[in-house]
Amino acid sequence: MEVSVKAPMCPSRGILEHVTSRWGVLVLAALFERSYRFSELRREVGGVSEKMLAQTLQTLERDGFVLRHARPVIPPHVDYSLTELGREAAEQVWALARWTERRTGEVERARVAYDEARTP
Amino acid sequence: MEVSVKAPMCPSRGILEHVTSRWGVLVLAALFERSYRFSELRREVGGVSEKMLAQTLQTLERDGFVLRHARPVIPPHVDYSLTELGREAAEQVWALARWTERRTGEVERARVAYDEARTP
Repeated sequence: MEVSVKAPMCPSRGILEHVTSRWGVLVLAALFERSYRFSELRREVGGVSEKMLAQTLQTLERDGFVLRHARPVIPPHVDYSLTELGREAAEQVWALARWTERRTGEVERARVAYDEARTP
Repeated sequence: MEVSVKAPMCPSRGILEHVTSRWGVLVLAALFERSYRFSELRREVGGVSEKMLAQTLQTLERDGFVLRHARPVIPPHVDYSLTELGREAAEQVWALARWTERRTGEVERARVAYDEARTP
């Protein structure tokens, strides 16, 4: 069967949803810049709960995008970084995040125009 | 204030969430290839409800990514296409969707390896 995100049951759609999930995007974009420890990453991705960050990292690790490296020190350190496959995904979402930041003013002006055109 | 998706309250984060939303990604990727009428687009983006598609298109229209063109014919036709700003976003999510399709086999193998390593 052809692999296509257009098909609801195709596994590619679920993978795309992991890469573009609310926290998945921000975690991948952060890890594209450098590796992080859990608590650092949580600060970097503002607003994420411990539970959601752990779940997002586990999903991305299982998909083969993220490497989890527990360092045998006291207290324990866990480092998160990207696999080669993860870097390919992360490069794209990092670029999309930067593009969105650059275009934020333009989108905000579009919203004002849209709302004004619909105000009686 | 600096525009950054890392800040929970920054408007850029909400825009990124629209572009990467479950249906937003698939709608933008479809419209990158051609313009669509509503019912055609609904078939193209398999599994989306009428309500969710209408809501997604309205959000993307308000953000300045999608153009809605009602043709004065009977029965009414509404065409959806991309603005220039929308094309910039759509090109990126289209590329991400195609990348995901190409890498689906690799992700599936990573999942098997992950699960096997954790099976007692």
